[in-house]
Amino acid sequence: MANQEDTIIYSLGPNCGIGEIEEGKTYAGTVQGFANFGTFVQLNARLKGLIHKSNMVQEHQEREQIFVKVINIRNNGNIDLAEVLPRVYRLETVTRQVRVTKMGDLSSQVGRSVTLEASVAQIKQTSGPTIFTLVDESGSGNAAAFIEAGVRAYPEIELGSTVMVSGEVMRRQNQLQIEVSSMEALTGEDAQRVHDRIEAALDARAEPADIPLLIESDVLERLRPAMRTVAKMIRRAVFEAQPIILRHHADADGISAAVAVEQAVIALMREEGDDLDTAYYLFKRSPSKAPFYEIEDITRDLDFALKDHERFGQKMPLIVLMDNGSTEEDLPSMKMARIYSLPMIVVDHHHPDAIVDEYVIAHVNPYHVGGDFGVTAGMLGTEVARLINPKVSDAIRHLPAVAGVGDRSEAPERQRYLDLIAEDYSEQECKDIALALDYEQFWLRFNDGRELIKDILNLKGNRDLHKNLIGLLVESANAAIEEQMAASMPHVVEERLPNGAYLFRIDVEIFAHRFTFPPPGKTSGEIHDRLCRQHPGEPVVTLGFGPDFAVLRSRGVLMNIPRMVRELHDEITGGGISGGGHLVVGSIKFVEGMREASLNGLIEKIGQAPVE
Amino acid sequence: MANQEDTIIYSLGPNCGIGEIEEGKTYAGTVQGFANFGTFVQLNARLKGLIHKSNMVQEHQEREQIFVKVINIRNNGNIDLAEVLPRVYRLETVTRQVRVTKMGDLSSQVGRSVTLEASVAQIKQTSGPTIFTLVDESGSGNAAAFIEAGVRAYPEIELGSTVMVSGEVMRRQNQLQIEVSSMEALTGEDAQRVHDRIEAALDARAEPADIPLLIESDVLERLRPAMRTVAKMIRRAVFEAQPIILRHHADADGISAAVAVEQAVIALMREEGDDLDTAYYLFKRSPSKAPFYEIEDITRDLDFALKDHERFGQKMPLIVLMDNGSTEEDLPSMKMARIYSLPMIVVDHHHPDAIVDEYVIAHVNPYHVGGDFGVTAGMLGTEVARLINPKVSDAIRHLPAVAGVGDRSEAPERQRYLDLIAEDYSEQECKDIALALDYEQFWLRFNDGRELIKDILNLKGNRDLHKNLIGLLVESANAAIEEQMAASMPHVVEERLPNGAYLFRIDVEIFAHRFTFPPPGKTSGEIHDRLCRQHPGEPVVTLGFGPDFAVLRSRGVLMNIPRMVRELHDEITGGGISGGGHLVVGSIKFVEGMREASLNGLIEKIGQAPVE
Amino acid sequence: MANQEDTIIYSLGPNCGIGEIEEGKTYAGTVQGFANFGTFVQLNARLKGLIHKSNMVQEHQEREQIFVKVINIRNNGNIDLAEVLPRVYRLETVTRQVRVTKMGDLSSQVGRSVTLEASVAQIKQTSGPTIFTLVDESGSGNAAAFIEAGVRAYPEIELGSTVMVSGEVMRRQNQLQIEVSSMEALTGEDAQRVHDRIEAALDARAEPADIPLLIESDVLERLRPAMRTVAKMIRRAVFEAQPIILRHHADADGISAAVAVEQAVIALMREEGDDLDTAYYLFKRSPSKAPFYEIEDITRDLDFALKDHERFGQKMPLIVLMDNGSTEEDLPSMKMARIYSLPMIVVDHHHPDAIVDEYVIAHVNPYHVGGDFGVTAGMLGTEVARLINPKVSDAIRHLPAVAGVGDRSEAPERQRYLDLIAEDYSEQECKDIALALDYEQFWLRFNDGRELIKDILNLKGNRDLHKNLIGLLVESANAAIEEQMAASMPHVVEERLPNGAYLFRIDVEIFAHRFTFPPPGKTSGEIHDRLCRQHPGEPVVTLGFGPDFAVLRSRGVLMNIPRMVRELHDEITGGGISGGGHLVVGSIKFVEGMREASLNGLIEKIGQAPVE
Repeated sequence: MANQEDTIIYSLGPNCGIGEIEEGKTYAGTVQGFANFGTFVQLNARLKGLIHKSNMVQEHQEREQIFVKVINIRNNGNIDLAEVLPRVYRLETVTRQVRVTKMGDLSSQVGRSVTLEASVAQIKQTSGPTIFTLVDESGSGNAAAFIEAGVRAYPEIELGSTVMVSGEVMRRQNQLQIEVSSMEALTGEDAQRVHDRIEAALDARAEPADIPLLIESDVLERLRPAMRTVAKMIRRAVFEAQPIILRHHADADGISAAVAVEQAVIALMREEGDDLDTAYYLFKRSPSKAPFYEIEDITRDLDFALKDHERFGQKMPLIVLMDNGSTEEDLPSMKMARIYSLPMIVVDHHHPDAIVDEYVIAHVNPYHVGGDFGVTAGMLGTEVARLINPKVSDAIRHLPAVAGVGDRSEAPERQRYLDLIAEDYSEQECKDIALALDYEQFWLRFNDGRELIKDILNLKGNRDLHKNLIGLLVESANAAIEEQMAASMPHVVEERLPNGAYLFRIDVEIFAHRFTFPPPGKTSGEIHDRLCRQHPGEPVVTLGFGPDFAVLRSRGVLMNIPRMVRELHDEITGGGISGGGHLVVGSIKFVEGMREASLNGLIEKIGQAPVE
Repeated sequence: MANQEDTIIYSLGPNCGIGEIEEGKTYAGTVQGFANFGTFVQLNARLKGLIHKSNMVQEHQEREQIFVKVINIRNNGNIDLAEVLPRVYRLETVTRQVRVTKMGDLSSQVGRSVTLEASVAQIKQTSGPTIFTLVDESGSGNAAAFIEAGVRAYPEIELGSTVMVSGEVMRRQNQLQIEVSSMEALTGEDAQRVHDRIEAALDARAEPADIPLLIESDVLERLRPAMRTVAKMIRRAVFEAQPIILRHHADADGISAAVAVEQAVIALMREEGDDLDTAYYLFKRSPSKAPFYEIEDITRDLDFALKDHERFGQKMPLIVLMDNGSTEEDLPSMKMARIYSLPMIVVDHHHPDAIVDEYVIAHVNPYHVGGDFGVTAGMLGTEVARLINPKVSDAIRHLPAVAGVGDRSEAPERQRYLDLIAEDYSEQECKDIALALDYEQFWLRFNDGRELIKDILNLKGNRDLHKNLIGLLVESANAAIEEQMAASMPHVVEERLPNGAYLFRIDVEIFAHRFTFPPPGKTSGEIHDRLCRQHPGEPVVTLGFGPDFAVLRSRGVLMNIPRMVRELHDEITGGGISGGGHLVVGSIKFVEGMREASLNGLIEKIGQAPVE
Repeated sequence: MANQEDTIIYSLGPNCGIGEIEEGKTYAGTVQGFANFGTFVQLNARLKGLIHKSNMVQEHQEREQIFVKVINIRNNGNIDLAEVLPRVYRLETVTRQVRVTKMGDLSSQVGRSVTLEASVAQIKQTSGPTIFTLVDESGSGNAAAFIEAGVRAYPEIELGSTVMVSGEVMRRQNQLQIEVSSMEALTGEDAQRVHDRIEAALDARAEPADIPLLIESDVLERLRPAMRTVAKMIRRAVFEAQPIILRHHADADGISAAVAVEQAVIALMREEGDDLDTAYYLFKRSPSKAPFYEIEDITRDLDFALKDHERFGQKMPLIVLMDNGSTEEDLPSMKMARIYSLPMIVVDHHHPDAIVDEYVIAHVNPYHVGGDFGVTAGMLGTEVARLINPKVSDAIRHLPAVAGVGDRSEAPERQRYLDLIAEDYSEQECKDIALALDYEQFWLRFNDGRELIKDILNLKGNRDLHKNLIGLLVESANAAIEEQMAASMPHVVEERLPNGAYLFRIDVEIFAHRFTFPPPGKTSGEIHDRLCRQHPGEPVVTLGFGPDFAVLRSRGVLMNIPRMVRELHDEITGGGISGGGHLVVGSIKFVEGMREASLNGLIEKIGQAPVE
């Protein structure tokens, strides 16, 4: 150990500032340059002092190491040095002596000066100061930096920069805010260190809790790793103030899935200190018109996200697709999203096309683990939501059952989810809720109808209102279905196909009420169900068509609709044929002028399919 | 009378606080419990003090009455007591000595501490304080209560609670606001008393002025009680900061009715101190697409209202239906509104179905008092508006005449309203205004076009602009009508029915310009008018049809359209027939594929109707 | 020179206030009236004092001149005078001694009291103070005047008034604001002087810089005065805080024109100190559905503008029409705009109808100077944008080339603009950008898609993203076109007309995919292009029709479509025929039921047109 009499030579760490040096102490420096009045010495990358020529002892070369005593730190920050030549010394490294406050502790620091290390999640230029949203491992908050009205402060600091910020904690407009006195983009090791620390902490915080599934299910167990990945990404987005856009299929299953996640995310944001306004601003749930992510949807989402990014310095959003997103039809939109590096997550139970996984960062799908569509999106979504925020688990535990009966799941999970809630909801009640969702969503068009939907799903704790609402909606939906059937059923045309199957045809545009519930697809489905009941045990195909489309439902006929569509596309020149769906349930589009040819071609193929 | 030397024992009233007790005075209390250092004594339900064991005179049981002198009130609110045993005393009750300020007087109290009694009209949780909107008999205002950022203050206080609030009056963001120091939900008698006082005062304030009608009219006189009820409810909603949604038929009559009420309500809100933004936020006028309250409308209204209720703690709205709302077609929406306990008011002149009155809290309708549709909604609406706010009376007095000619009223009221304004507007000018309203509303689609509509109705005091605007709109409307007639009239098919009536048929979809003014219904009406002029004195029926609907106009044929529709519905299987309207003017819907059968069936029935 | 002993008699200038008089000094006044306690004397139009009868020297008549000494100025502003009768005196005029601060200098005056002369650009009544937006020659800003909460301060001051304002400069919500202590509408000479000074200064500031065109072009040189006029008006609007609505044709040419001006205006607003929010609030770019200013568009624009005017005291907007606005089809909307005195500017390259110029205040059109549509709107718009703000010149210099290839310009300017940017963009790249614009705008419907469009036009400096985006959009667009052609081409019907021209007919509604890209007009164009290539050197007419419209493309047939449409309108009774366009490219509308007759009539005329 060195003698106490030894001179101590301090070596400044790379991030030390003027606050870390003291008059009277001696430091190691590097000769940086010469002026006629003295020599400039670099103490570290940020600090430079001057040895007046009267205080020089020896001559030096540029970049030579040298020891200097700090004589004086002037008010303007200039540092006067004197060269020293200690005989005996020991070297000590000075590291920055800042007490770093965590974002999550700001509320106890109002009125005090603090220093934080954080990464920049949003930069908004106002007509006054520049507002930086900062995130560290403990939370997020705003810092206001003012240079001149409307002028961007610290232009070198960008979205994603790792920064050290000092300033006073104030309460402004009832929000905590740091009034920035200094702000510095960390670089090199410092940046890496802080970035790594925040990353590691956020990563650890984002890790979902280890909780059991609501029910026993092999498929769901095998999906657990994927579900954890999805939950973690969503949790990270919340912690980092990244906006989330949740697009979902607008049916009972898709709504159940999306609302489960909505409940988990909003509650998590509230725990993070966001008010409801902010929570709903950062989280948008959008029912999609089509059963996939349409070009029109991504265009709209991108348009808004880019404007928010530009005007409010908002991060680009995380896209979550539920009950859609797993097929080739989503590709055009996904390609567009990828141009803008939008991260995408899929939670779906449709048969996935492998190519989709080139575009998404996570994908929960029962087909990946040997399951099928019977494990519906609502089941998956609810389990994911519980991983995002276990506190909402009780509130949403009946959603998988609603989704299961709504999507007519035949998987064993359906009954288990029904059993789980049997004390609170009968199967019929679940069916009623699913029908009410479909009916109400029809009138909501493509609005989320947040509170109405929550009442339908009994998420607001007002069971009486919930029951009355379901009662009314189910009554109205059934009356509308009956009225539609009264208009449509007499016009169904029956035919017996070569393979023995019954073919039922109905023009659902001219023999049904338009622009009302039930819409053509559901009308066709309802007709098919009735005809199946009228022909028990027989193979049945129902074809509900309009001017340029047809919807196919079938029972007991082993069709492969996607293949039939591909063949028709090639066989019927100028037919403009496209479409698809599942093997035995799907739809087909054609140009209006080729309807006859297209339907005849289709029917011929149906007539050749083997029957069960 | 007691001797002056007697000790006075004060008994604290149930709502007294620490401000009502004084050191040195003696109070009646109840022993609440014991500690090793002394005895706790309850002075009333809110105040508790401690008798140190050194100050105890006797031993007591729990709940025993005891007299105590207040020795000291500490800074932290603790009360030190000493037991006293007065020989002679007289009891005096202390009632709360608070000078209660009225909301309406806040502006003179800036910077001072006040106490108010009020009921809670809105609770908004911000990321900082909780904002309570308070209402008393004199006005409304906001109180901000802060516990912790984003945490709901006084969670026991709910929308509708009766409260006592103390705090300092501040001006924040140019708004008066009470910074709450204490807030208490009143209970029991106190709550009842304050509630009753506010209720009684609001009730009295809401009572409409006793002013005469603009014209003499037996029907309107008989409707006066109903109109007063409606006016009072709307006034109450204004005083209580309850949002109002006014849905109305999008024609000249409906617009006149709704705008009259809009003028009255906005002016009343402005008198209450609301700025224009708040006024238009709390009052929404929405022209309806259909001549009734459609499911799509209530869905949208509910979706928004529930979101506002959730995010901003806004009250659920009062629904006012004008020039619609009185028929069975409104029932589905009314049922939905009732689920959410939305109060509904109807001001209509269509033939009412009695069942509607099970769903609405007030209903003005001339049929209720022996009148008919000739007393139009615009007439009713204007008289109601005058009761809501007599100050707008002069500004809106010409609206009934515009409504009357717009709806082709044949009631005597029409001429009287025209006479009333004869110096300012000729009958032709009123017709022009009505046509301009119809034309402009067509292009506004279902936006309210507030300011444009006000200029058309000459409500902004710029008569020159008004005249120029009417001139242009009437010229444009007539040119468009002429163009439509040039396309349509040559395609009218004439037929003589068995009953001698002329039947004119025209396909208004393929023989008229689409998506432009005049729309199919008005096109049919215009064609009918021209054909009537060409066949003076003859019975005429005009049938303007499209793919799945027909519009019926008639003269001199004693049809009962609603009955015809009901019969056709039963007779034509798979026709999907519905519709209705008045006896001799109406419309019918069918599925497109059954148009031929439906029209033929309809025409057969028309041919059997007696002619005048 | 007068003796120093002479009494100086001061004569107050017309605008002097109480601050300009001093106790002890003598002033010239005019007897205004008599009371039993003294005589009132007017010192100027604004100041009046009283001579108590004890201080009167002589008797006077009303309106007599008199000299008075100021004895006392009371706290309430009353002025006590005494008559004086100086023997020798000299007259000196007192002019107002105010140091007038300029709006542009406010930021250096925070916390100080200032006086400004300005004109009023906006008056917004809040629930607290009245906010006046003031404009002078140096900039604009807000002044808050408070009388009573929600009560309009200085009601005599109107939008457009010239005012003198005094008050303290404060920073509120990070915005500079004057807290008004006094505000006065200047009148007479003062108003004129200030108004003239501001006008002159604004006029001078608004004058565009004198910069050369991007390319050599006789037509553009001849349009320079008109372009300078347009640029100046837009600059004035920016300086005066007048909102701007830019309506444009939603194709590549129109978008290029409008975006060029958008870039120039937003940058200018930012220089003026507006934040991005304000800039985009004051400047709205709206792609129009139709290739003209539709009634629906003006209705919407007026509805919003009038509401903003009413609620926020906003000025009525300047309307800028680009790539449309020059034909009779715009007249109905222009008439409507004129009713409200909305100034309108047109920058278009369609063949202009002279009557339009009765409605617009400036109009840039190559046809006015012997040019034609080959000098496209995008070329004009870019040159205008450079005059508005030369700083954006480099950023937008490639837009004319994109516009030129997008609109298939055959003018020499096309190649020159291509040459200008040859180092950065090839002709093919420009074509790709134009196609990408058309494709993306289709999915944007009628949203501006600001940031997406900027990326397509490479205005954000991210060339890689730009290239990837163009790559994807072009690939997608071409795939969609190929798919459409596969459906349509087989259904084209060929015919040889009497004049030897090939006529190709195609029903683009029933033989094309609907509601997708490419839409019917572009589908027809693509079919025509392919057929032209298949029949090189031959006259070709392609007729793409739907139920109630047809689109005409032609090569080598000397038609006059507008004349043909007029003739058909007269010849075909009940056809409802309208339409137009250029001589050899255009469209025609008819009622659906008369399609056969209309098309046959049209084809007959085509067959009679001379071929090249």
